[in-house]
Amino acid sequence: MDYRIEKDTMGEVKVPADKLWGAQTERSRNNFKIGAPASMPLEIIYGFAYLKKAAAFTNCELGALTVDKRDYIAKVCDEILEGKHDDQFPLVIWQTGSGTQSNMNVNEVIANRAHQLAGKKIGEGEKTLAPNDDVNKSQSSNDTFPTGMHIAVYKKIVEVTIPGIKQLRNTLKKKADQYKDVVKIGRTHFMDATPLTLGQEFSGYVSQLDHGLNALENTLPHLSELALGGTAVGTGLNTPKGYSKRVAEFIAKFTELPFISAPNKFEALAAHDAFVETHGALKTLAVSLNKIANDIRMLASGPRSGIGEIIIPANEPGSSIMPGKVNPTQVEALTMVCAQVIGNDVTINVGGMQGQFELNVFKPVMAANILQSAQLLGDACVSFEEHCAAGIEPNHPRIQELLNNSLMLVTALNTKIGYYKAAEIANTAHNNGTTLKEEAVNLGYVTAEEFDEWVNPKDMVGGLK
Amino acid sequence: MDYRIEKDTMGEVKVPADKLWGAQTERSRNNFKIGAPASMPLEIIYGFAYLKKAAAFTNCELGALTVDKRDYIAKVCDEILEGKHDDQFPLVIWQTGSGTQSNMNVNEVIANRAHQLAGKKIGEGEKTLAPNDDVNKSQSSNDTFPTGMHIAVYKKIVEVTIPGIKQLRNTLKKKADQYKDVVKIGRTHFMDATPLTLGQEFSGYVSQLDHGLNALENTLPHLSELALGGTAVGTGLNTPKGYSKRVAEFIAKFTELPFISAPNKFEALAAHDAFVETHGALKTLAVSLNKIANDIRMLASGPRSGIGEIIIPANEPGSSIMPGKVNPTQVEALTMVCAQVIGNDVTINVGGMQGQFELNVFKPVMAANILQSAQLLGDACVSFEEHCAAGIEPNHPRIQELLNNSLMLVTALNTKIGYYKAAEIANTAHNNGTTLKEEAVNLGYVTAEEFDEWVNPKDMVGGLK
Amino acid sequence: MDYRIEKDTMGEVKVPADKLWGAQTERSRNNFKIGAPASMPLEIIYGFAYLKKAAAFTNCELGALTVDKRDYIAKVCDEILEGKHDDQFPLVIWQTGSGTQSNMNVNEVIANRAHQLAGKKIGEGEKTLAPNDDVNKSQSSNDTFPTGMHIAVYKKIVEVTIPGIKQLRNTLKKKADQYKDVVKIGRTHFMDATPLTLGQEFSGYVSQLDHGLNALENTLPHLSELALGGTAVGTGLNTPKGYSKRVAEFIAKFTELPFISAPNKFEALAAHDAFVETHGALKTLAVSLNKIANDIRMLASGPRSGIGEIIIPANEPGSSIMPGKVNPTQVEALTMVCAQVIGNDVTINVGGMQGQFELNVFKPVMAANILQSAQLLGDACVSFEEHCAAGIEPNHPRIQELLNNSLMLVTALNTKIGYYKAAEIANTAHNNGTTLKEEAVNLGYVTAEEFDEWVNPKDMVGGLK
Amino acid sequence: MDYRIEKDTMGEVKVPADKLWGAQTERSRNNFKIGAPASMPLEIIYGFAYLKKAAAFTNCELGALTVDKRDYIAKVCDEILEGKHDDQFPLVIWQTGSGTQSNMNVNEVIANRAHQLAGKKIGEGEKTLAPNDDVNKSQSSNDTFPTGMHIAVYKKIVEVTIPGIKQLRNTLKKKADQYKDVVKIGRTHFMDATPLTLGQEFSGYVSQLDHGLNALENTLPHLSELALGGTAVGTGLNTPKGYSKRVAEFIAKFTELPFISAPNKFEALAAHDAFVETHGALKTLAVSLNKIANDIRMLASGPRSGIGEIIIPANEPGSSIMPGKVNPTQVEALTMVCAQVIGNDVTINVGGMQGQFELNVFKPVMAANILQSAQLLGDACVSFEEHCAAGIEPNHPRIQELLNNSLMLVTALNTKIGYYKAAEIANTAHNNGTTLKEEAVNLGYVTAEEFDEWVNPKDMVGGLK
Repeated sequence: MDYRIEKDTMGEVKVPADKLWGAQTERSRNNFKIGAPASMPLEIIYGFAYLKKAAAFTNCELGALTVDKRDYIAKVCDEILEGKHDDQFPLVIWQTGSGTQSNMNVNEVIANRAHQLAGKKIGEGEKTLAPNDDVNKSQSSNDTFPTGMHIAVYKKIVEVTIPGIKQLRNTLKKKADQYKDVVKIGRTHFMDATPLTLGQEFSGYVSQLDHGLNALENTLPHLSELALGGTAVGTGLNTPKGYSKRVAEFIAKFTELPFISAPNKFEALAAHDAFVETHGALKTLAVSLNKIANDIRMLASGPRSGIGEIIIPANEPGSSIMPGKVNPTQVEALTMVCAQVIGNDVTINVGGMQGQFELNVFKPVMAANILQSAQLLGDACVSFEEHCAAGIEPNHPRIQELLNNSLMLVTALNTKIGYYKAAEIANTAHNNGTTLKEEAVNLGYVTAEEFDEWVNPKDMVGGLK
Repeated sequence: MDYRIEKDTMGEVKVPADKLWGAQTERSRNNFKIGAPASMPLEIIYGFAYLKKAAAFTNCELGALTVDKRDYIAKVCDEILEGKHDDQFPLVIWQTGSGTQSNMNVNEVIANRAHQLAGKKIGEGEKTLAPNDDVNKSQSSNDTFPTGMHIAVYKKIVEVTIPGIKQLRNTLKKKADQYKDVVKIGRTHFMDATPLTLGQEFSGYVSQLDHGLNALENTLPHLSELALGGTAVGTGLNTPKGYSKRVAEFIAKFTELPFISAPNKFEALAAHDAFVETHGALKTLAVSLNKIANDIRMLASGPRSGIGEIIIPANEPGSSIMPGKVNPTQVEALTMVCAQVIGNDVTINVGGMQGQFELNVFKPVMAANILQSAQLLGDACVSFEEHCAAGIEPNHPRIQELLNNSLMLVTALNTKIGYYKAAEIANTAHNNGTTLKEEAVNLGYVTAEEFDEWVNPKDMVGGLK
Repeated sequence: MDYRIEKDTMGEVKVPADKLWGAQTERSRNNFKIGAPASMPLEIIYGFAYLKKAAAFTNCELGALTVDKRDYIAKVCDEILEGKHDDQFPLVIWQTGSGTQSNMNVNEVIANRAHQLAGKKIGEGEKTLAPNDDVNKSQSSNDTFPTGMHIAVYKKIVEVTIPGIKQLRNTLKKKADQYKDVVKIGRTHFMDATPLTLGQEFSGYVSQLDHGLNALENTLPHLSELALGGTAVGTGLNTPKGYSKRVAEFIAKFTELPFISAPNKFEALAAHDAFVETHGALKTLAVSLNKIANDIRMLASGPRSGIGEIIIPANEPGSSIMPGKVNPTQVEALTMVCAQVIGNDVTINVGGMQGQFELNVFKPVMAANILQSAQLLGDACVSFEEHCAAGIEPNHPRIQELLNNSLMLVTALNTKIGYYKAAEIANTAHNNGTTLKEEAVNLGYVTAEEFDEWVNPKDMVGGLK
Repeated sequence: MDYRIEKDTMGEVKVPADKLWGAQTERSRNNFKIGAPASMPLEIIYGFAYLKKAAAFTNCELGALTVDKRDYIAKVCDEILEGKHDDQFPLVIWQTGSGTQSNMNVNEVIANRAHQLAGKKIGEGEKTLAPNDDVNKSQSSNDTFPTGMHIAVYKKIVEVTIPGIKQLRNTLKKKADQYKDVVKIGRTHFMDATPLTLGQEFSGYVSQLDHGLNALENTLPHLSELALGGTAVGTGLNTPKGYSKRVAEFIAKFTELPFISAPNKFEALAAHDAFVETHGALKTLAVSLNKIANDIRMLASGPRSGIGEIIIPANEPGSSIMPGKVNPTQVEALTMVCAQVIGNDVTINVGGMQGQFELNVFKPVMAANILQSAQLLGDACVSFEEHCAAGIEPNHPRIQELLNNSLMLVTALNTKIGYYKAAEIANTAHNNGTTLKEEAVNLGYVTAEEFDEWVNPKDMVGGLK
C-alpha cells in the first residue's frame, strides 16, 4: 500500500496515501483496535459537518476566519453531508472518551479535502487550512463532540423514532376505532375476566404510545441545548465575543431544527443528563411496545390450540422443519428491539453517572447507544406496522366462542344479588362444567329471564360512565 | 393466641382475635411468607384510605351507598390516615401482582373497625359494612391498587423528593454564587486543563439538578391519572354513571393534589408506564447526583495527598483503626442511594414490560421500588445538604498552588502563536519540570511581558462570550 | 427521654440512657436520616458477632488480649446471635460506604454490654472493654464489614436460597417423572408446534434449575474468602503474626461453614467482585424462574378461555369484584421477586464498579441487595412450591383436545413425503378448517392407513435418539 | 438489477441474480428493514457452517444422506468458514426470534452454491441439494440457531476474551512483582490512609482478574452443551437414532472444542440460561476492569495538579485545543467497553427471562450482545495492555512526597499508645499544619526516638502476618 507522511505535535505518522485523514486519525486507528473498524456512527460525523460549517460561518462573521477559509470548510462539510466521504472516518466508538480523535478525524479530512479543492496535492504546498487553528477554531473536542452527538440524536429522534412510532400508533388507533364494538372476553392475571371490546383493548395501546410520545417530546428541549462555545472546560476560552449564541443559530439554520446554545456550558461538557433523560423516554416506549407486542403475540396464538382471537399476516414460512407454520415474527423482532433498548438504558446510565470534574468521558458509548435505540425503535415500529399491525383482523367466531364460555360474566350479578351469591354460582358452574345460567337458576338466585336480562356481555362494556 | 373465625367465599379462616383484618388477609399472610412481614409500604395503604373514602362519598352522592355507610367508611379511613391502624396491614409486597389481597386487607379492616365504631363486637351481629359489597363498591383491586399507588407515589414525590432535591440545589446555587470568582484549575480526562472558577464548577451541578427537576415535573401529569372507575378490566362495569370523574375529584380534594381520572382506563390497569416514565426521571436525577457527589468527594480528597481543593465538614470519626481520619461519608450515603435507584429502574422496567392483556400484575413490586427511590433520593439530598454541602469551603491556598502549576494555561497562547508552538512550550516545560513562562521565553515565541499579559488565569474564565 | 453522655475522639454525644450503643452510633443515627431507621440488615450484625468473637479468640491466642476480655466479648457476641440485642442496631444502610458506623455500633454495644455483665453501670467506673482498642483490636471497618457481609450472605445462600430452590426443583422433578407420558401439543413462537410430553416440558425446568444451582455453587469459593486480617488497607497493619489465617479458622468453626482467609486482602477490601459474581448466579436463577413461572401461568390460563392444560391450586378468592375468580397468585409473587433480583443485580454492578484505590465504599448497599435477593428467591421458591407447584395437575381432557387439533402433526410426514408436500397439506387444512388426514388423503400424498401409521403423536415424542 | 425467481412454500420471490440466497432470505430482507443491513454476526454464520457440515456427516453416517450430498454440503461449509461468502448473509439481528431466517439463509446459500459446484446454473436443472430436505435434514431452526450461537460464543470466549484478559492480567502481575517494594500512601474513602506498596495495589487487580477468569471458565461447561438433535421442540423428531450425540462429536472434532450434546434439549431450546450465566461472568469482569482502569486513571492524574503517582504512556495528542495535553485514553476506551457490557447484561436478562413454552425467541439479540461483550472485553484488554498497562511506571519522587505527608502513619501508634491518643496527635497536626512527629513529641506521648522507631512506612506494609 502507498503511504504519505503526516505530522502532529507528537511527530510523523504514515497514512495510506489515498485517504484524506491525517496523523491523529491514523494514530487512533492503530491504538484502538477494539471491535469492528469504523464503528463510530456516521450520524455523529454528519453532526460534526453541521457544526464545523456553523463554526466557520460564525468565526468569519466575528472576524476570526477569512471568507476563503470559511468557504472551503463549508464546501467540504456539504460534501460530507452528501455522503461523499463516508469511507474517510475509520475510527471506533472505543477511543478517547471525549471523542477527541473523531473530532480530529473530521478536522483532518476537512483540511486535506480543502487542499484538494484548492487544486493542490495533500502534503504538498502551503496548507490551505490548518486542522487545529482553522477548522477547529473556537472549538475543543470537549464542546464539539457533545454538539455533534446532540445534533445526531435530535435528528434521529425527530426523523426516525417519532415518525415510526406515530405510524404504528395511527394504525393501532384505526384498529381501535374499527373494532370498538367487537365484544370479547377480558383477561386479568391471564385468567378469564369480564368482557370488553377489541377496540377498547387496542385503545389502551394507543394511550400508551400517546403518553410515550409525549414523554419523549418533553425531553427534546434539554436535547436541543448545544455545548458549542464552551471549548475546553466550559468557560469559552479562545472564542470570540458572541460566538456561542451565534454558532447555535447557524446550526439551527443549517439543520432546520430548534437548537439553542446551552445556558450552562459546564453541565453540557461534564454531564450528559440530556441523553439519560431522553433515553429514559425511549426505554419507556420500549416497555410499552413490549407489552403491546406481547399481547398481539398471545391474541394471535394458535392457530388451533392457542387463544386465536386475532389473525395476523403470514409473511414467511415460519419453520424450517414444521411445514405450514406461521409465526408472529414481527412481534419477535420488535420485542428483541425492546430488550436491546432496555439494556442500552443501563449502558447510558453507567456512562452518564461517571463524568468527572469538567468532562464526561463516556461520550461515544452514550451517543452510540442512544442512536441505536432511536433507530431501532423507529425502524421496528414501521416494520411491525407494515407487516403485522396493519393486517390484524379479528377472528370473530373464535372471539364469540371464548366470550360465551366465560364464567366471569357472573360479575354483572354482583349489584343484583351480591358478591357472595354470584361467587357461589360461578364456583358451582366451574365445578360442574355447566353454564352460569343453569346454575344461577338451579340455585334459585335469579330466574332465567332475569339472567338473560342482567347478564349480557354487550351491556358490560358500555363505556365508562 | 386467641382466634376468631372469619369467612370468605372459600370458607372459614382463623384470625388472631385482636386484629381487625379478615379471612382474605389471613390467607395471604399464610400463603406468602416471602421476605420480612408487612413489607407492603404503608404509603400505599394511606393511598387506599383516600380512595376508599372518595369512593364512599361518590357512591353516596350517586345514590349507591347510604350516608351512614359512607360516614363509617370515611371515619375509618381518617383513622388510618392518622396512623392509628398501622399494625393492621401485615401483608407483603410479594403477593398477588394486582395487590388484590392488600385491597381486601383494607376492605376488611374498614368493615371490622366500622363494626367496632358501631358499638359491636367483630364477628357478632349484623355486619355494619360488607367488605366487598360496601367498602369495595364500584371498585376492583385492578383499579384501586393502581389508584392507591399513584396517590402514594405522587405524594412522595411532591412532599419528599422534590423538596429534598431543591434544598440541595439551592445550597449548591448559593455556593456557585459565593465562589464565582475563585479561579481554579479545570480538569478534563481527570488531567489538568484550563482554569475555571469554583462557582462555575458548581453552577454545572445546579444546572444538572434544574434540568432533572424539570424532567421529573414533566412526568407528573401522567402520574396524576387515576385508574379508579375502570373496575375489573377498564370498562367501568358495576360503577354508577358519572362515577370515575367524580371519584377523582374527591381524591383531589382529600389529598389536595391535582389528580384526574385517567382518560384511558385500559392503559391504567394494563400498563404502568407512568411509573416507568417517572422513575426514568428519578434515575436521571440519580445519575446527576452521582456525578456531583463524586466530584465533591474528589475535590475534598486528602487532606494531604489528594486534590484537596475544598474542605467538607467532619461529622464523625472516619475510621475504627486510623485515628483522626475524616471521610466523605455523606457522599458515600448519597452515591449508594444512586446505585439503588439505578437498579430499581431496571426492576421497574422489567415489571412494566410484562403486563398481559387487561392487567399488569407487577403492581406491588413496581410501587415499592418507585416509593423507595423517591424517599431515598429526597432524604439523601437533605442529609447531604445539611451535613456536607452546606459546609463546603474552598481551600484557597491549595487551589492557588494547583492553579499556578498548571501547564494547560498555555492554551491562552493558541490564538497568539498557534496550537503547534503552544504545544512545544507545554511539552518542553513538562519534560524539563520547568514553568511555561521559562520555556516560552527560552523558545523565543513570546517575551516575558507578553507571557504575563496573555497568560492570566483570571482572563481565561471570563464568562462565556 | 433520659440520656447519658458518651464520648468519642470528636467529643461528647447524648445517647438514650436505655440503649447500649455509644457516641459514634448516635452520631450516625442523627447524621443519616435516610429511609426507614435500622435498615442495616440484622444478618450483617450477626456476621459481625461471629467475627468479633473470632477476633477475640485469635487475639487472645496470639497474646494480644486477655482471657477475661476475650470471654466478655464472646459472651456478648453469643447474646447478639441469640437475638437478644436486635433493637440495639438502629443504623441505616445509607451511611458511610465502608460500614464503619455499623462496625462501631457493634463495638460500642459489645463494650457497654460487657460493662453490664461485669456488674457495672454504663458510663461509670473503669471501662471493662474499650470499643476500639479491645473489641476492634486487630481490625478495621475496612476488613470487618466485608467479612461480616460475606458471612451473612454465605449463610443466607446455603441456608435459605439453595434449600428453597432445591425444594422447588425436586417437586418439578417429581412432576416431570409423573407426567412423562402425558403427550401434549408443543408450542414454539407461542404457536402450535409438534408434540412433546408434559413431563418433558417440566424436565426442561428441572434442567434449568440444576444448571442454576450449579452456577450458584460455583461462586461459593470466592464468597468464602474473608477480608479479616487486612485491616485498614489490606496490609494487615496492627495485627499479630498469624492472625488472618487463624481468625478465619475460628469463623469457620463458629459458623460451621468453610470460610478461609482471602489470599489477597487488597482485592478483598477494594473490590466486591465476589458479590457481583454470586449475584450474577442469583439473577441467572431469577431469569430461569421467571421463564418457568410464566409457562405455568400460561399453561394454567382459563379456566375456559385460555390454554388450560394444567390446573393449579386455588388458594384464595382471586378478585374483589369478579366472584369465583382464581388467579396464579404464587406465579405473580415469584415473578415479582425475579424482577426485583434482576434490578438488584444492576445496583450491585453499579456499586461494584466504583471501588477506588484501597476501598470500595458501596459495601452496605451491595450487601443489602444481595441479602434481599438471596432471601426472596429462597422464600419465593418455597412459597411457590408449597402453594402452587406441588398441586399442579394435568387437565387431561383439555390436553387431548388441543393435541388432536394441531396441524403441526404434519411434521411427521417430512421424512416420508418431503417438507413441501407436507406444507401443502397443512396449509390446505388450515384454510379449509379441516383435518390433516382429510387433506393428506384428498391431495393424494398418503393413504388413510399410511397417515394413521405415520402421524401418531405418541411416536413423535419418543425420546431423543 | 438482474433478478431470478426463487420459490418457497409461500410462492415466488425475486432475488438479485448474483446472490446465492433464496426466497426465504429475500423475504426476510424485505420484511425486516430494522437498523443496518447484515447485522447478524458472521460468527454465528460460521457456527452454522460447522454444524451444517457436522449434520451432513452424521446424517450420512446414519444412512440418511448420500455421500455426494454430504460432500457438497461440507465443501460449501468449508468455503463459508474461509470467508468466501461473507456477503451472502444480508439478514439482520431483528428478525424472527428463533433465527429461522438466518438458518434458511445458510440452507439456501449452501444449496445454491452446491448447485454451482455441481457445474450448474442456479435455478436451472434438478436441484443438487434441497435447502430443507437435505441441508436442513434432521434439524430445525430451533436447534440449529442455538447450536450455531453456542459455537460462536464459545469460540469467541476462548479465542478472544480469555486470551485478551490474560494478557492484561500477566502484565499487571509483572508490575505487581516489579513494584512490590515501592511504598506509597494508601487511600480509603479517597482519603489518605496507611501505606502499602504499589505492587500490593496492583496485586489486588491481578487477584480480581484471576477470580474473574475463574468465574468465566466455570461457565464454559454449560456453554458447551449443544441443542442440536432437539429439532422442533426438543424431542428430536425426524432425527435418526444416535444423531444428537454423534453430531456433537463431529462439531467438537471440526471446531477442536469440547462441545457435547445438551443432556436436556427442552431447556436448550426454551431457555438460554447458559448465555445469562456466561454473560454474568463477563459483566463481573467488566465490573473488575472498570475499577482497575479507574484506579490507573486517578493514579496517573496530573501531570501537576492531580495524584500523579504513576506515569502512563502518551500515545496521542490529548486535546484539540489544549496543546501538550496527554490523556488516559486507553482507560477511557476500556471503561466505555465496561459500560457497554454492563448494559448488555440487562439486554441478555430481558431476553432470557421471556422464553415461552418450548422456545425462547430472543436468540439473535442475546447472541449478538454476548458476542459483542466477549469481543470488546478481549480487544479492549489487549489494547489497554499494549498501549497503557505495559508502559506504566512509578513516579518515585511524587510517591515519596505524598507518602511522607500522610497523617495516617499515626495508625502505627495505636498498638503503642492507644487509638485515642493517636487520634489526638493526628488531629492536632491536621489543625496546625504540622507533622505527626512534632505533635507526638509536643503532646508528650512519645519521644522523638520512639516515633522514628515506631512510625516507619516500610514497616507498615510488611506483608500479611
